[in-house]
Amino acid sequence: MSLIVQKFGGTSVGTIERIESVADKVAEFRRQGHDMVVAVSAMSGETNRLIGLAHEIEEQPTPRELDVLVSTGEQVTIALLSMALNKRGVPARSYTGSQVKIVTDSAHNKARIKQIDDVNIRQDLDQGRVVVVAGFQGTDEDGNITTLGRGGSDTTAVALAAALKADECQIYTDVDGVYTTDPRVVDSARRLDRITFEEMLEMASLGSKVLQIRAVEFAGKYNVPLRVLHSFQDGPGTLISLEENTSMETPAISGIAFNRDEAKLSILGVPDIPGVAYKVLGPISESNIEVDVIVQNVGEDKTNDITFTVHRNDLPRAEAILRATAEELGAREVVTDAKIAKVSIVGVGMRSHAGIASKMFKALADVAINIELITTSEIKISVVIDEKFLELGVRALHSVFDLDKPVPEEDQS
Amino acid sequence: MSLIVQKFGGTSVGTIERIESVADKVAEFRRQGHDMVVAVSAMSGETNRLIGLAHEIEEQPTPRELDVLVSTGEQVTIALLSMALNKRGVPARSYTGSQVKIVTDSAHNKARIKQIDDVNIRQDLDQGRVVVVAGFQGTDEDGNITTLGRGGSDTTAVALAAALKADECQIYTDVDGVYTTDPRVVDSARRLDRITFEEMLEMASLGSKVLQIRAVEFAGKYNVPLRVLHSFQDGPGTLISLEENTSMETPAISGIAFNRDEAKLSILGVPDIPGVAYKVLGPISESNIEVDVIVQNVGEDKTNDITFTVHRNDLPRAEAILRATAEELGAREVVTDAKIAKVSIVGVGMRSHAGIASKMFKALADVAINIELITTSEIKISVVIDEKFLELGVRALHSVFDLDKPVPEEDQS
Repeated sequence: MSLIVQKFGGTSVGTIERIESVADKVAEFRRQGHDMVVAVSAMSGETNRLIGLAHEIEEQPTPRELDVLVSTGEQVTIALLSMALNKRGVPARSYTGSQVKIVTDSAHNKARIKQIDDVNIRQDLDQGRVVVVAGFQGTDEDGNITTLGRGGSDTTAVALAAALKADECQIYTDVDGVYTTDPRVVDSARRLDRITFEEMLEMASLGSKVLQIRAVEFAGKYNVPLRVLHSFQDGPGTLISLEENTSMETPAISGIAFNRDEAKLSILGVPDIPGVAYKVLGPISESNIEVDVIVQNVGEDKTNDITFTVHRNDLPRAEAILRATAEELGAREVVTDAKIAKVSIVGVGMRSHAGIASKMFKALADVAINIELITTSEIKISVVIDEKFLELGVRALHSVFDLDKPVPEEDQS
Repeated sequence: MSLIVQKFGGTSVGTIERIESVADKVAEFRRQGHDMVVAVSAMSGETNRLIGLAHEIEEQPTPRELDVLVSTGEQVTIALLSMALNKRGVPARSYTGSQVKIVTDSAHNKARIKQIDDVNIRQDLDQGRVVVVAGFQGTDEDGNITTLGRGGSDTTAVALAAALKADECQIYTDVDGVYTTDPRVVDSARRLDRITFEEMLEMASLGSKVLQIRAVEFAGKYNVPLRVLHSFQDGPGTLISLEENTSMETPAISGIAFNRDEAKLSILGVPDIPGVAYKVLGPISESNIEVDVIVQNVGEDKTNDITFTVHRNDLPRAEAILRATAEELGAREVVTDAKIAKVSIVGVGMRSHAGIASKMFKALADVAINIELITTSEIKISVVIDEKFLELGVRALHSVFDLDKPVPEEDQS
């Protein structure tokens, strides 16, 4: 018997039939004696429908009122799921974010959770009720309805689990766990039994879009064991926790992430004056363009080459800004390339395994892939390569780091 | 400059275009300097859509959760209307029933308002904001969402007007006021400039479905001047207030109401024993069948004839019960008739005018209509007649009581 927080996303509750399936699953856990708290999203399509109504009125609707509007989406789901549970003889009670209460700051449309008042939830759990909470929403201290921004239901679930000191927070989604890499690219990609918060953050931010980054950060901060599971298929999923895989066979690398949403810009032959990186990148970030990889080299002629990547959609704007900067600084040339991909190997095992980087570079060289940029962090090495070699590179790395192989029996936790 | 509460029903806010029209209207009042509070219903069709979802899950959904579900309907409207007002440069802020707060009892799906906390509203009005309130909903003292039952938005508006001591409560609807009778039956039916609460109650309960009965009762109790207006046509509407029409020309009768939803049942030849009416009608009302007109006569043979009317849908059930009662009491016969209509003349003028009843009966006799039942109250006389004479009877009465004639100039308030 434990306290479990479950979260079901929009697709999992997208129809009445699916809400009934979710009710079956929750009821089964409840019958096993677990205390259950369930956070849900709006039925799929509903949030977009509501935002569409707002946009018929105004391109930039009042943020406060937009929250009042879209928060109805989850409110519908909590009511329907509670009805479905009650129908099954499993007493359930729904709560909006305001009713819990999930107190946030007042940043409408992108509020952050400050505190959760769990008195109502505890009372219901004590009385044997399943508590169904609207994800993605809260209330500020003045009683205004707020939302956490899109996808924020994962964060709601993790925050509830943290506040209630739940034994596990289960995120149900349309995949059965976190994979060593994208199975659409590598046939032999394998579901991971477990992964650390840090690794998951690196995987998530690099494009394995299973969980909201904020939810993983939150879970890591409060050490809430997080499990990713498939909504409609049975299976153990992937457990995301503080602990590393401690068996003898700990692999060096947990997964391969990749991303083809970026574009590369280089400014070449910038005179080597102090603060040149700021002079080049300042105007870019002031235009709210997010910069990812940055590499700077001082060449032999004492001029600088600075290369960085931005989201591909931002390339035209970034290029215009960079050309203006180049003129101002007297740089030699600006070069851009939209046809790039970023490939990363991620793993806490990197800390205790030597030679990971050179093994990666050799694997790519063996299949004749030229590396254009390299960046490293403690548990991740990323390279930027020509987009057309993406699949080839990911497959080569997946194989060379032994991710194709099944995990030895003792690791199946 | 006054404080005006306006209420717009589901049809008036049924599309984004109509919400924009409502915003235009409210903005115009605001620009004239009035303090504005606006109560709105769910967009037409939305409440039924939500209830449909609930019924896909269960025939009898949990009442608490049904309220959580359907209350989202008005929440969508308040957000959209507030956005539309803000777009027009008219600062507006939305409130759910829980946010106001409109405190009700805990009778889910049919809650009654106990109290309104107007602190938030007053603050916003003081700051020049239009306050947009979700109709039809409230919160009980434990913070559970409640609804007032269908059509309850009128009641919300009146209760807000009473709490705020508003100068007028304007109910916008799809008719331009209260008529002397149904214009579909009598071509020359006329909009009334004013009518008293009492008259309106008699008119409403008899089928002139312009306003919710409960809202009129509430308005009468707290003496809130109520005005019925057309949402999309200009005009003075009908003012419903305490005051009678005080001009010399006060008409005896304000209007003719009618109803063809009833059926008549008679039990004949019941032995005249004490409590016979209770013995006959007790089992009917215990089956939750509402009884309207009741007439009892003692015949010459010392047996009773009791006749009463019920809603036509309840006739088969009522008849079965009555036949069982007849057998038990040794009554002679049970007779039923579904083809009846009830016609009523309503007017506070009745109190000061003699001979109204006989004038009514003569008018019907003149067109050869047989009266089957008669009941009277202080400001109303109702007769039950054969359904096929309904239009003929209503037209005859409308004419004989001078309702066809325009009101003299001085009465045009």
